[in-house]
Amino acid sequence: MTSSPLIIADREIRSRLFVGTGKFSSNENMRDALDASGAEIVTVALRRADLTGKHDPYANILEFIDAEKYLLLPNTSGAMNAEEAVRLARLAAAAGLPKWVKLEIHPDPTYLLPDPIETLKAAEILVKEGFTVLPYINADPVLAKRLQEVGVATVMPLGSPIGSNRGIATRDQIRIIIEQATVPVVVDAGIGAPSHAAEAMEMGADAVLVNTAIAIASDPSRMAIAFKHAVNAGREAFELGLPEVLDEASATSPLTGFLG
Amino acid sequence: MTSSPLIIADREIRSRLFVGTGKFSSNENMRDALDASGAEIVTVALRRADLTGKHDPYANILEFIDAEKYLLLPNTSGAMNAEEAVRLARLAAAAGLPKWVKLEIHPDPTYLLPDPIETLKAAEILVKEGFTVLPYINADPVLAKRLQEVGVATVMPLGSPIGSNRGIATRDQIRIIIEQATVPVVVDAGIGAPSHAAEAMEMGADAVLVNTAIAIASDPSRMAIAFKHAVNAGREAFELGLPEVLDEASATSPLTGFLG
Amino acid sequence: MTSSPLIIADREIRSRLFVGTGKFSSNENMRDALDASGAEIVTVALRRADLTGKHDPYANILEFIDAEKYLLLPNTSGAMNAEEAVRLARLAAAAGLPKWVKLEIHPDPTYLLPDPIETLKAAEILVKEGFTVLPYINADPVLAKRLQEVGVATVMPLGSPIGSNRGIATRDQIRIIIEQATVPVVVDAGIGAPSHAAEAMEMGADAVLVNTAIAIASDPSRMAIAFKHAVNAGREAFELGLPEVLDEASATSPLTGFLG
Amino acid sequence: MTSSPLIIADREIRSRLFVGTGKFSSNENMRDALDASGAEIVTVALRRADLTGKHDPYANILEFIDAEKYLLLPNTSGAMNAEEAVRLARLAAAAGLPKWVKLEIHPDPTYLLPDPIETLKAAEILVKEGFTVLPYINADPVLAKRLQEVGVATVMPLGSPIGSNRGIATRDQIRIIIEQATVPVVVDAGIGAPSHAAEAMEMGADAVLVNTAIAIASDPSRMAIAFKHAVNAGREAFELGLPEVLDEASATSPLTGFLG
Repeated sequence: MTSSPLIIADREIRSRLFVGTGKFSSNENMRDALDASGAEIVTVALRRADLTGKHDPYANILEFIDAEKYLLLPNTSGAMNAEEAVRLARLAAAAGLPKWVKLEIHPDPTYLLPDPIETLKAAEILVKEGFTVLPYINADPVLAKRLQEVGVATVMPLGSPIGSNRGIATRDQIRIIIEQATVPVVVDAGIGAPSHAAEAMEMGADAVLVNTAIAIASDPSRMAIAFKHAVNAGREAFELGLPEVLDEASATSPLTGFLG
Repeated sequence: MTSSPLIIADREIRSRLFVGTGKFSSNENMRDALDASGAEIVTVALRRADLTGKHDPYANILEFIDAEKYLLLPNTSGAMNAEEAVRLARLAAAAGLPKWVKLEIHPDPTYLLPDPIETLKAAEILVKEGFTVLPYINADPVLAKRLQEVGVATVMPLGSPIGSNRGIATRDQIRIIIEQATVPVVVDAGIGAPSHAAEAMEMGADAVLVNTAIAIASDPSRMAIAFKHAVNAGREAFELGLPEVLDEASATSPLTGFLG
Repeated sequence: MTSSPLIIADREIRSRLFVGTGKFSSNENMRDALDASGAEIVTVALRRADLTGKHDPYANILEFIDAEKYLLLPNTSGAMNAEEAVRLARLAAAAGLPKWVKLEIHPDPTYLLPDPIETLKAAEILVKEGFTVLPYINADPVLAKRLQEVGVATVMPLGSPIGSNRGIATRDQIRIIIEQATVPVVVDAGIGAPSHAAEAMEMGADAVLVNTAIAIASDPSRMAIAFKHAVNAGREAFELGLPEVLDEASATSPLTGFLG
Repeated sequence: MTSSPLIIADREIRSRLFVGTGKFSSNENMRDALDASGAEIVTVALRRADLTGKHDPYANILEFIDAEKYLLLPNTSGAMNAEEAVRLARLAAAAGLPKWVKLEIHPDPTYLLPDPIETLKAAEILVKEGFTVLPYINADPVLAKRLQEVGVATVMPLGSPIGSNRGIATRDQIRIIIEQATVPVVVDAGIGAPSHAAEAMEMGADAVLVNTAIAIASDPSRMAIAFKHAVNAGREAFELGLPEVLDEASATSPLTGFLG
């Protein structure tokens, strides 16, 4: 395919499918699924890492993620506020990880929804410290704008709660975010089926992040390929332009002919 | 991919994407798009053919559809009742076309919705005459059953009106048709985006038919590839099993860690 | 309210809410709910009646439905085909019930979806015999037209399966039925909440039939009143004309003022 | 009806329908519609008022809103940030209006979506100054919680953009807000039809605010009554408990009988 490239913070990213590394049944399964997905950007939860210096950070999981092949995107999942998120990001950088961070601050354990106030606060601090910041947010167009004003590299609005597989329930708001965005829009969370991923891309999202649906599939590698194809298909359709949605039918076969 | 095969009337069909041949801007574009789509089953409206014997039937369009490569599926689009549809099918067979017929009877010019009574009547006649009958129907589970009882080879419920690009508006009813089907279910009409095609496949449809969205795309061949990928992705997801849709979130990253 | 009247078969009906009599926990509850609903048309399943002559037909249930106040609409629920439905209707008429019949033919025990072929067949017979026929149908616009052509008094498309409370899942098709109808359209089945009833009326349905949601409510009479109000509200909105649905916002408050 | 009372900041409010005063074609129409609606809480944009002291604030519009009968709720519509909103609220209080304020801060002129950061900031200030604060917010459950923590009297999440009449497009998020709320939840914006209002109430919202759909109706008073009934119907249904939504049908009429 000849799709236009995705560029984030001046880096050209070869795949519009980002993959998360939680919930896989084994590191081997994860490694194979990442490979099959074609993803370049791979998220890892910092809370899963030992950043204390007592152990080699990421020792185990890093053996399975080739840093030459993937852009490792640490996320601050588990942080309850800006302070915790900033601390996690700094520790990760100090431990030698790339200064890219997926900013996730969700104080609510039931729905894991992001905190808009703390997210903006942490984004301001981290951008000033030279981080490339990709914040996970509710589908809030005004918040998306404010984050763009402080210099984030993307916005990552949720389709529906993390791991819920409910798809793009926030359709109307995501449409507005895309329309107004000055940075790439990555739809994150809730994408539970290839059709959800394709829909996000057809709406004009620049990328999607998928984790649960791949990680817990009976065959994560095959599911990763399915998502890769769906993302490409949706992107192609967006670039080519989808036909107008009509109220009436429009005959595909001419209704008059020369049948004798 | 290693998806299970699609079998219709004892014939193994290599692609779950069927493509219609109306609305292309040129026969060359159509030929290339068919090739790119990977489709095996290709529908052609009989009303577009000269079946009178005065001219070589399908002379022109057939130059562009390789009969070795594709299963040409004549459709009776334009027929207002069973009698007209049966006559069209017989003429096609007499002209040497395969005895497969996509049965389309839609008396209503605005929405092109199929007539359940005439469709069942025509199906009964054509099945008895040895045709392989693939009827286009409203998403009516009881009608689908009755058609199966008279021996149709598939049922082809509509997602939404032909050419409307509204997607799977009849979701609930199609789910029931699939659940109760004893023949392959092909979702036809209204599929205006790759995500629609993927959704139909994820629901368990055996195939989809796409025409308008490919034919009128700025680049029909690229759009055909997009649909091919979406159909494969949706089928894979169906075969692998999609994750449960939840009301709440489900953390992908463990929320407690050993961060010091 | 000054809504335009609903006229079915030349009879002016005072309420656009029809109520079914199944599933009530007691006949007293049913009687009170019917009274509270303001309904004029009340359906009763013929299968529940003793029409054999051995017992007084409807003896018990009729003590609770005042024939002066309500138009009793016998339904053929439980009939598996046209023959059974016709027989039920004739027995009811012979037993002195009004020659109005809600035609319900659903061979499928899981979804209770109506059979389009048998329904049309029975409608033709019963119309010729002088019955006022109100058929329960799938949301199939072509079938609706054909029934109108044989002389039915209304069409009663389903919103979703009986008792499922899923609301107007067949929205797109019902919109077409209403647009093309020459008789009143009564949305039947699946209406599980006042908002569903209001929506049907806002779309231009002439009436709705509600049973389960009222009958199994903790207080059927209060729920009946809620549905009555929702039906009236939806009808009013339809008659007054609803505002256009916009993609953008439209300020309700002027955004410039003379604030100093 | 015997619905449980709505209490906001210790005041019992007699109606769960709030009405806005923008867009009416005349003050007389507005007055009559307010009366017909049964509303107690009525919002007025401060930007429309002369609060400079040069003129009698609200002179004109106040002649049409009986302060004995209605609780006048000034709103800060038009404010671009917290500072402007706070200034407007203070001016209103200084001019003798009640210290209740509907906090609206929307910097974006196209979609009029609220700013979460500025809204929280202004709410903190105004609550400390003794205002009863009712903030208009995106359907963001975490923001709703944070506002509750600073002491707002309600939260007012949007269904869809102001004046768009798109209904409850933010359904999933509003459901979470309601589930977690410690103050009344008032669904605001986008409610364009009685069915939308009923749905919000059925979901458990404590009240709804309607403006455009009433103000621009061909007969605002009749439309106000329609919304009043829809709100009551939805609330009743919520209090009585709605029936479960099922995947299958559930017969309302017994399918076996003693018909001979």
